Amino acid sequence: MIAFLFFCCNPAPDKTGNTDTTTTTVTANNADPLPSWNDGNVKRSLVDYVTNAAKEGSSGFIPAGDRIAVFDNDGTLWSEQPLYFQLFYSFDKIKQVAPQHPEWKTKEPFKSVLEGNLKGVLSSGEKGLFTIMGATFGGMNGDAFDKSVKEWADTATNPVTHKKYTEMIFQPMVELLQYMRANGFQTYIVSGGDISFMRAWAEKAYGIPPQQVIGSSFKVSYDSTGIQRLPQFEFMDDGPGKPVGIYQHIGKKPVFAAGNSDGDYQMLQFTSTNALPHMEIIVHHTDSAREWKYDRGSPIGKLEKGLDDAPKYGWTIVDMQHDWKKIYP
Amino acid sequence: MIAFLFFCCNPAPDKTGNTDTTTTTVTANNADPLPSWNDGNVKRSLVDYVTNAAKEGSSGFIPAGDRIAVFDNDGTLWSEQPLYFQLFYSFDKIKQVAPQHPEWKTKEPFKSVLEGNLKGVLSSGEKGLFTIMGATFGGMNGDAFDKSVKEWADTATNPVTHKKYTEMIFQPMVELLQYMRANGFQTYIVSGGDISFMRAWAEKAYGIPPQQVIGSSFKVSYDSTGIQRLPQFEFMDDGPGKPVGIYQHIGKKPVFAAGNSDGDYQMLQFTSTNALPHMEIIVHHTDSAREWKYDRGSPIGKLEKGLDDAPKYGWTIVDMQHDWKKIYP
Repeated sequence: MIAFLFFCCNPAPDKTGNTDTTTTTVTANNADPLPSWNDGNVKRSLVDYVTNAAKEGSSGFIPAGDRIAVFDNDGTLWSEQPLYFQLFYSFDKIKQVAPQHPEWKTKEPFKSVLEGNLKGVLSSGEKGLFTIMGATFGGMNGDAFDKSVKEWADTATNPVTHKKYTEMIFQPMVELLQYMRANGFQTYIVSGGDISFMRAWAEKAYGIPPQQVIGSSFKVSYDSTGIQRLPQFEFMDDGPGKPVGIYQHIGKKPVFAAGNSDGDYQMLQFTSTNALPHMEIIVHHTDSAREWKYDRGSPIGKLEKGLDDAPKYGWTIVDMQHDWKKIYP
Repeated sequence: MIAFLFFCCNPAPDKTGNTDTTTTTVTANNADPLPSWNDGNVKRSLVDYVTNAAKEGSSGFIPAGDRIAVFDNDGTLWSEQPLYFQLFYSFDKIKQVAPQHPEWKTKEPFKSVLEGNLKGVLSSGEKGLFTIMGATFGGMNGDAFDKSVKEWADTATNPVTHKKYTEMIFQPMVELLQYMRANGFQTYIVSGGDISFMRAWAEKAYGIPPQQVIGSSFKVSYDSTGIQRLPQFEFMDDGPGKPVGIYQHIGKKPVFAAGNSDGDYQMLQFTSTNALPHMEIIVHHTDSAREWKYDRGSPIGKLEKGLDDAPKYGWTIVDMQHDWKKIYP
């Protein structure tokens, strides 16, 4: 049945101008579970790992309840350039409600946002970004926030690609998520992004339900009218915060972790200590033609420690340009 | 298949001396999904609700992904007298490590714990109890805590019943959990108890995996050796904290909630506002012979507001003495 599903849904030949000719067919049958991945070592490792995890008697077998897979979101499941997409939500929201806040016209960092001055916004530093986030992610009813993000996700577009943000999810990773779930894995997002922001669209985009999304969070309170989001930031699900988020939300060590930046380092390291068969991958942004190319020097998605230590831990580097037949759906 | 499973596993006739003769058979076939519940209005309501939730076309139908059911633990899924069981874990732990803490012999609240002076412990108030909790739930490696609780759950016994704590789970509720899961519900614990304490034994006792346990929590940190539990309390999953815990962990409003005390009031209220078919139950401790009898005046599991407002909200009161054929497995 699963084989049939994959076979039936093989996408049309790639139209992105990919010229990679170094790979040859590795799968033994027609049912390729990862059609948007080029054949090669990385794809073979993924298929071997997942197949064995589900095969009782295999040395790679993992009991069903322990098949916990965690995925970073920004830069791992969707793009993150020229800036984390949730910041664009904040900017759009500020422009939308600006008429009710005439004082923003002269007050930074709002002034720069309203003038479309990205440089000015960034020069406000972390404090400025948290001010913007507090004003747009907190201070409202939980249901209202969810509705607002859903509407934005359905319509807003990235300033560089002019695609909808939800069309900038990585097709190879969507296939990997589906493939792992079809083999009994529970797939989680563990991201520095806001937990409620991601929950509003992650099920539609990735098939990951709200209860399997872990992220940074704002404080919330409850009164008889419902959940109220407060403007105070509460938990940073990044760096060492990722294993903390996993411990508090899942209560089990993952067997599989995917990341793309040094913010994922500790999550990969934590997963690497699992006594069960485990695998860690790093999505390396190497494709300036089809996506973006960045790592060590990048202010967004900096990847340095992860690249340096990958061989030591046995982490698999996914070379976007080389390993992915297509990028977006 | 489900019917067969329930039929095959019908327990032997009740041996607890239950003399209730007011009920008659309500189920139409041999497969009673709730054999430890006496026939009557409450059982009928539960079966109707669950059956309709899973029946497409029924006015009570609930899409599978929305079948989120939340259960309080202390007093709802297991007993909570003469004191919340996790405090007995703390007391046992303090006695165990006392040789390394000679200063405890003269220092309250530890002195009272070591002398078995429960009254003295309780007179130390909330501050004293948090001191005891901090010393026994925090300040250690996460895996070590998990192992310690598992060992305790396998051996420790309640001072009144002399049963193991994990033998003091409510058989009718275990059946309800199984029955709901068999009908596509996701069952969660949402308890004032410590999240990691419950996770150590909840899967074995109730079939609820760690990621579906929500509770109060201590702060934790991560370093390369793993998760470290800090002695600082972080989140109180009780009263208005329960809808907050549900929002942060599940991100969806439940359709079913079960509680037993006023600490569950807001969770039931929150569930009552669901636009989908919903049901709320309160386990009322009315059985002094087989368990304990308490509500309005009780320092543990006080139930007053819930009883007063149940008719207004349409919450179902489960009368333990009347509705339950047996209490413990």
